[in-house]
Amino acid sequence: MSLNSFGHLFRVTTWGESHGPALGATVDGCPPGVALDEGMIQHWLDRRRPGQNRFTTQRQEPDAVEILSGMFEGRTTGTPIQLMIRNTDQRSKDYGEIAQAFRPGHADITYWQKYGIRDHRGGGRSSARETAARVAAGGIARAALAMLAPDIRITGYMVQIGPHLIDRERFDWAEIETNPFWCPDARTAEDWAVYLDEMRKSGNSVGAVVEVVAQGVPAGLGAPVYGKLDADLAAAMMSINAVKAVEIGEGMAAAALTGVENADEITLGADGQPVYSTNHAGGILGGISTGQDVVVRFAVKPTSSILTPRRTITRAGEETEIVTKGRHDPCVGIRAVPVGEAMMACVILDHLLLDRGQTGGVRGRIG
Amino acid sequence: MSLNSFGHLFRVTTWGESHGPALGATVDGCPPGVALDEGMIQHWLDRRRPGQNRFTTQRQEPDAVEILSGMFEGRTTGTPIQLMIRNTDQRSKDYGEIAQAFRPGHADITYWQKYGIRDHRGGGRSSARETAARVAAGGIARAALAMLAPDIRITGYMVQIGPHLIDRERFDWAEIETNPFWCPDARTAEDWAVYLDEMRKSGNSVGAVVEVVAQGVPAGLGAPVYGKLDADLAAAMMSINAVKAVEIGEGMAAAALTGVENADEITLGADGQPVYSTNHAGGILGGISTGQDVVVRFAVKPTSSILTPRRTITRAGEETEIVTKGRHDPCVGIRAVPVGEAMMACVILDHLLLDRGQTGGVRGRIG
Amino acid sequence: MSLNSFGHLFRVTTWGESHGPALGATVDGCPPGVALDEGMIQHWLDRRRPGQNRFTTQRQEPDAVEILSGMFEGRTTGTPIQLMIRNTDQRSKDYGEIAQAFRPGHADITYWQKYGIRDHRGGGRSSARETAARVAAGGIARAALAMLAPDIRITGYMVQIGPHLIDRERFDWAEIETNPFWCPDARTAEDWAVYLDEMRKSGNSVGAVVEVVAQGVPAGLGAPVYGKLDADLAAAMMSINAVKAVEIGEGMAAAALTGVENADEITLGADGQPVYSTNHAGGILGGISTGQDVVVRFAVKPTSSILTPRRTITRAGEETEIVTKGRHDPCVGIRAVPVGEAMMACVILDHLLLDRGQTGGVRGRIG
Amino acid sequence: MSLNSFGHLFRVTTWGESHGPALGATVDGCPPGVALDEGMIQHWLDRRRPGQNRFTTQRQEPDAVEILSGMFEGRTTGTPIQLMIRNTDQRSKDYGEIAQAFRPGHADITYWQKYGIRDHRGGGRSSARETAARVAAGGIARAALAMLAPDIRITGYMVQIGPHLIDRERFDWAEIETNPFWCPDARTAEDWAVYLDEMRKSGNSVGAVVEVVAQGVPAGLGAPVYGKLDADLAAAMMSINAVKAVEIGEGMAAAALTGVENADEITLGADGQPVYSTNHAGGILGGISTGQDVVVRFAVKPTSSILTPRRTITRAGEETEIVTKGRHDPCVGIRAVPVGEAMMACVILDHLLLDRGQTGGVRGRIG
Repeated sequence: MSLNSFGHLFRVTTWGESHGPALGATVDGCPPGVALDEGMIQHWLDRRRPGQNRFTTQRQEPDAVEILSGMFEGRTTGTPIQLMIRNTDQRSKDYGEIAQAFRPGHADITYWQKYGIRDHRGGGRSSARETAARVAAGGIARAALAMLAPDIRITGYMVQIGPHLIDRERFDWAEIETNPFWCPDARTAEDWAVYLDEMRKSGNSVGAVVEVVAQGVPAGLGAPVYGKLDADLAAAMMSINAVKAVEIGEGMAAAALTGVENADEITLGADGQPVYSTNHAGGILGGISTGQDVVVRFAVKPTSSILTPRRTITRAGEETEIVTKGRHDPCVGIRAVPVGEAMMACVILDHLLLDRGQTGGVRGRIG
Repeated sequence: MSLNSFGHLFRVTTWGESHGPALGATVDGCPPGVALDEGMIQHWLDRRRPGQNRFTTQRQEPDAVEILSGMFEGRTTGTPIQLMIRNTDQRSKDYGEIAQAFRPGHADITYWQKYGIRDHRGGGRSSARETAARVAAGGIARAALAMLAPDIRITGYMVQIGPHLIDRERFDWAEIETNPFWCPDARTAEDWAVYLDEMRKSGNSVGAVVEVVAQGVPAGLGAPVYGKLDADLAAAMMSINAVKAVEIGEGMAAAALTGVENADEITLGADGQPVYSTNHAGGILGGISTGQDVVVRFAVKPTSSILTPRRTITRAGEETEIVTKGRHDPCVGIRAVPVGEAMMACVILDHLLLDRGQTGGVRGRIG
Repeated sequence: MSLNSFGHLFRVTTWGESHGPALGATVDGCPPGVALDEGMIQHWLDRRRPGQNRFTTQRQEPDAVEILSGMFEGRTTGTPIQLMIRNTDQRSKDYGEIAQAFRPGHADITYWQKYGIRDHRGGGRSSARETAARVAAGGIARAALAMLAPDIRITGYMVQIGPHLIDRERFDWAEIETNPFWCPDARTAEDWAVYLDEMRKSGNSVGAVVEVVAQGVPAGLGAPVYGKLDADLAAAMMSINAVKAVEIGEGMAAAALTGVENADEITLGADGQPVYSTNHAGGILGGISTGQDVVVRFAVKPTSSILTPRRTITRAGEETEIVTKGRHDPCVGIRAVPVGEAMMACVILDHLLLDRGQTGGVRGRIG
Repeated sequence: MSLNSFGHLFRVTTWGESHGPALGATVDGCPPGVALDEGMIQHWLDRRRPGQNRFTTQRQEPDAVEILSGMFEGRTTGTPIQLMIRNTDQRSKDYGEIAQAFRPGHADITYWQKYGIRDHRGGGRSSARETAARVAAGGIARAALAMLAPDIRITGYMVQIGPHLIDRERFDWAEIETNPFWCPDARTAEDWAVYLDEMRKSGNSVGAVVEVVAQGVPAGLGAPVYGKLDADLAAAMMSINAVKAVEIGEGMAAAALTGVENADEITLGADGQPVYSTNHAGGILGGISTGQDVVVRFAVKPTSSILTPRRTITRAGEETEIVTKGRHDPCVGIRAVPVGEAMMACVILDHLLLDRGQTGGVRGRIG
């Protein structure tokens, strides 16, 4: 029962602090025979890496991943894969003040209260830097999925920044990679650029909503009733820094629907297999995948590190004000997109393996 | 790794089907010495029990719980507690049609696809009847909390039915127990009664949003980074039947806030301990409790069993229409209130024990 | 992390006390589609049941098992199977004295020290009666193995009682079921009968060694390095009441062998697959099955409940002497035989499922 | 459920292969505030390190450990501690032959059969080199015990090499550190030196028995019935390379004892607390520590890599003979001593934390 681990059979343990010597992920349970190299993991890390445009922190880390174990001649061996990323840009001097004062909205105070000791530099273990390890692990999950279930495609994108939502009518998969926000709606991406520039200039920040879709997931994944696919996804996404809500399919909006509206009616496709009229369920019924797209959304709160002074207290028990200087994203939600994708990849792979163990992966026949 | 279990040290495994001989919960890890009897558990089961008013299913089950182990002379012994509830009202004849056709919105089709066999009677394992076992286990968690942390108070209530939200200005704790909806706003409760009567008469159903608050939770509970208090709550709530979204504190609304708005500023109370100006965080920072109220909300989709015909397919591969007769709630969200409370109680107790194991429960000092 | 559970994917949680209302096992992870009924489980329980001859306790329990969940129309559904055995012969009056005094060799004192409360009646949770639940769960494991790997045959037998070992030259599988000791050597069985009669008459007891063999286990089961097949077997057997040692293959004797002697040389069989000259390894190399017989032995200490007075102390802190009256086996090892078989069946099934989840169950090819 | 992890709350995951870039341990659940540095871990690694005398392999590895996370200003923070040891002496050329032929007694064949791919160099993941990671993790466990339970002292030593046992009459704690065998009996140590020289010269090897004692363990540790202290120790020791048997207290010899002989009678000490006349139980009753010395023994089979030719087969399906050249210990049991100590330290710490989580660590009172 490692509390820094997630997954059942594909089990990822992340370790490391923002300003320690290194961070990484211990990945256990990757099937043998998966073609893998550092470049394949680096690809996903580079997507997440900060400092790529003016909307993410200017911290410059190469984030070069090293595979320390679990590989032989270009393939995984079924033994644990250790991924290490050295921390190179450790400007600890920026973080002097927060050694004493607790930044509002950060885990500074709770880590202190729980542990009585904390690595305050850059947030230590609670830094969003931990998510680099998740993205690296997600790279392995993607490589394994490419072997075991090549039809699965996992894509994350941004659907809301502050009060500004995308227009679903203008949704275009091809747009996602073309703007700094992973926004599937080109016009909204332009609006966000203007909006975030204002935020940044005013020393403020803003929240966001990320959506991650897994296409091509076979029916039958998920382990009722406490390892349900949606329950595992909820935990996975909620464990990401700054996430405050997780939705599956209709999500919160399901509350306002009637049963007639919400029913995803079923007909038969040309192949004699089920076709759903709609996907209110987000691809999951009773915790098990239906074969439709698995759709997850999560809300990321605004960056807590802002240049506007906020009241707080010190460890010594004195009231003070704090301004969090340093290099911070006006919207941390942007960097959460590849993290959400990585979590989805890990959860889907995990359930693919689990389903094989539980049932042999054989399906009940329709027709 | 039981997939029908949840919790780390306080570990609950539920078992049983809607129309099998019995259902129940195996509760492992309850501390020794907790005063407990069947009446204390029955109290919470009675709150959840259907057939109490016209807004919940008319199935009449006494839901009488029997404690089969783990007790001696009125106290828990630290050994597993087995809770059993016999199923007495098993009108299987109502469920003939769904042996063949898959009800839209139900787990009928996914259980079939995954397992190739299913107990179709009343939904079998995927029936909301499983939540009786959760409520029973929650009764044990509450008894243990009463011994270990008597200041903790856990309360669930309804904040939305269909499109109708409560008015927070009229929020009154005392109202919650006085209407059939656990609604803290008397006027809205009246509106809901009218609205639900219409729904029921038109053979339709509607979704809801439940909020559960834990007051008096000490700072320091939660196990970063994958056993975070919020991640565990997200999984716990999402695992409840028909839940499609989970929010902590501001939840989805956090996306539209700025960092300045969202900051819960900290000052010092008369006792020299932290006081927060607001609770956007829902009592959790970095996955660890702050000492504020822990606030969770979840959306329940409308009951999928409706009297309006919906298109579906049969196991034999034929298209058909289905009307789900039988005794169904127009709004299953209502019965989810005590279930959400139970999950909260289990998660909080679990983290209280876990924190003792991890850190000894000692806190970092402020001042 | 239930501490009353074992297994990874086939997960068994036992519950219940010797003199409580009932005891049983919650079995999660049984594959769907396994043909099963109560008679198939009862068969194994009847083998274990006391009161069948003068060498086991005269406690008369029917030990009738009831399946409460997880079945539909004669087959398992993949959902948790709850097994319950009511305790019917609860002569609590026999156990008055041990409420105060701790019986040497029993868990009376340690349960008291750990929990500060204990059900002293008949040993409560620490009674060997708990093993009935294991045997019942083992019955399910056997049924699942019969479907998934019908070539596997699991057999336990006694190889030593007190200082008297069987003669391996006279080993006869057919003898095992024909004497009250599950002894594969008819002549030794006769000696044991005489020896145990003496022990019983003198108010004494004696230890034993049980061997369990699994034949037909495919190569490739076992999860290095901390879920090794032998490590899991060691834990499974050591967790049985009164067991003090576990051996695989040569066991302790391996210490006195040289590398030349201990090598299980490999040649090719007619089918081009490996044939081993010997089986010092007990069918396990590097924690993974070789395809040879899996051979486990465990030592059971003498029954601690004896009629000879022994010095002890009371809970109140006074020295005293105790004679454990009641109905006790002169050699508890005898009843451990079906328990050992059950644990072997559970562990093998668990690793069969686990291997499918990890690797898909595909094997590296030889030739 | 990582299968490369052990422990409940103090959870150790080892990773790495004999000839990969590095190996190490991810240690999760170490309490915060433990004074620790690399030197404290290196101390134990140096004890295990090969190449220190003529009785252990001449492979020269500095085995320098690096702490990559989980520390701040000389103390643990409660977050995962990553330990890495770079592999520097990777003479892969020695291992050409075993790429094709399976060495008898090694995991070569089973890893191949299970995974269909293996890092054959030096045994890859199945190499005893993995135990360096265990020893490093054990160093952390010892540091935590020094803070939480400073009275606990853990000592391993050799009690048998080949057929030669120590004389318990000559047992001297002070001798253990003075000879290359960790032998507590000086005269036997001399005999072993002669005996092992012969073995080495004849290209043969021999088995051994290691005993590990934990003194000062408080009563009450252990989690019945499947997390029993002895069951966890059995799994821990059996998971060490080449171990074939585990004994607690009397171990296998318990089988030949009578109940009268085996009873550890209890009287009261001067402090009013229990004093046991003997320790046949090895400090554990019902899976819970009694407060006596916890005594574990395990048998290590002879080194399988020997210079005497043995028959085997190749991956291509041909019969052949193999002589394992390279640098091998005539008795791998010697290097298992610090490994056994490390496992004991990890298990004891784990149960100390677990007991706090389960019961608060409060004890039932005697007197």
